[in-house]
Amino acid sequence: MSSTDNPSPHEASILHSWEQNADAWAHTVRDGHIESRRLVTDRAIIEAVLDGHPGSVMDLGCGEGWLVRALADHGIKALGVDAIPELIARASEAGGEFHVTSYDDIITGRWQRRVDTVVCNFALLGKDSVDKLVAALPSLLARGGRLIVQTVHPLVASREQVYEDGWRQESWSGFGRAFPAPAPWYFRTLASWIALFANSGWHVREMREPLHPATGQPASVIFVLQRR
Amino acid sequence: MSSTDNPSPHEASILHSWEQNADAWAHTVRDGHIESRRLVTDRAIIEAVLDGHPGSVMDLGCGEGWLVRALADHGIKALGVDAIPELIARASEAGGEFHVTSYDDIITGRWQRRVDTVVCNFALLGKDSVDKLVAALPSLLARGGRLIVQTVHPLVASREQVYEDGWRQESWSGFGRAFPAPAPWYFRTLASWIALFANSGWHVREMREPLHPATGQPASVIFVLQRR
Repeated sequence: MSSTDNPSPHEASILHSWEQNADAWAHTVRDGHIESRRLVTDRAIIEAVLDGHPGSVMDLGCGEGWLVRALADHGIKALGVDAIPELIARASEAGGEFHVTSYDDIITGRWQRRVDTVVCNFALLGKDSVDKLVAALPSLLARGGRLIVQTVHPLVASREQVYEDGWRQESWSGFGRAFPAPAPWYFRTLASWIALFANSGWHVREMREPLHPATGQPASVIFVLQRR
Repeated sequence: MSSTDNPSPHEASILHSWEQNADAWAHTVRDGHIESRRLVTDRAIIEAVLDGHPGSVMDLGCGEGWLVRALADHGIKALGVDAIPELIARASEAGGEFHVTSYDDIITGRWQRRVDTVVCNFALLGKDSVDKLVAALPSLLARGGRLIVQTVHPLVASREQVYEDGWRQESWSGFGRAFPAPAPWYFRTLASWIALFANSGWHVREMREPLHPATGQPASVIFVLQRR
């Protein structure tokens, strides 16, 4: 059996962790408790989407749905999907189009809505699951359609550790709130992100590195990919 | 007059600096005095070139010519060009095909030899001059031909400074030898490098981040570009 057929136990625990953390997460986002989001990365992802002038956007891994509503405020027709029903319930309460949809729904073709742009805002957390998702996403887009991914900047997230791919654990320290469960996520180097995109039907059109005003260092990295 | 018509005085002083530093540089490279080159980046650029199985290679900004000879040892037909006559004289003494050729020779079309792969190993030092060169290089390559650029890793070179494009000065401290002249070079963020390539006729096919064994951090970044 290949490693793809036998995924890491971390993959399953990502979803389990977010089911437990849904309530704390929704409060944290809505109360603006994550400084880097409030100061830098929220605006950066909105600008990256708007710069492509999309007619329709899907926010994949939308969580409690803030980005769908922010894009609607800019006149963009957006919908949000997330695998965690509790988060979609929160998102729907606040208004907008939201669906409980898993990576597997997209990978297997059960989800078929086409859009101009897919955005993944700090939402690509797994290894094999993300590899398969990124390879499946071109089918949701017309030729020339865009995938926009914002994630932690690998070099900035790796200053105290060896810079190499591997599973890490989000302990939620510094989030100003108790989270019930630690959350595993798969660290990728910049080279690994580029390889994933270039080998999955995407052209790397642009990279953005929005700076945190306090540190002068990137608060995140945004990849703008175009379907080949 | 646009900034392109009125280049920074740093551009001219790059060449002037390397004319003065040619002798010290040739000794430094040949004596293996730059640890990161000896341990990591020399091998990394050779592997990046070999992985493309090119029939012909041009080493642009070849300096004293070590890479042309290393590629020849692997059976690759390579030639080297550099704007500094003193460096080309050193290179030619040691064997191989070398020419005194400036960026302008390539930008204006005076240089017309076609190759499968162009490699720039720590050789893209300017701002406007490099912008124009990178946009002119597709004309030297057949469709699908590759440009391979190794440079300092921007995040690693920027830990103590704000992460933004700008002129910097190489003071040669830590090179184990006295260099006659400081050398200006233009720092680019990763985002700026990707923008330059994507807007100049190149697909970003791959990025490599060879690790320094002592630090576990990237010793350089290598971009592998393909002509659109």
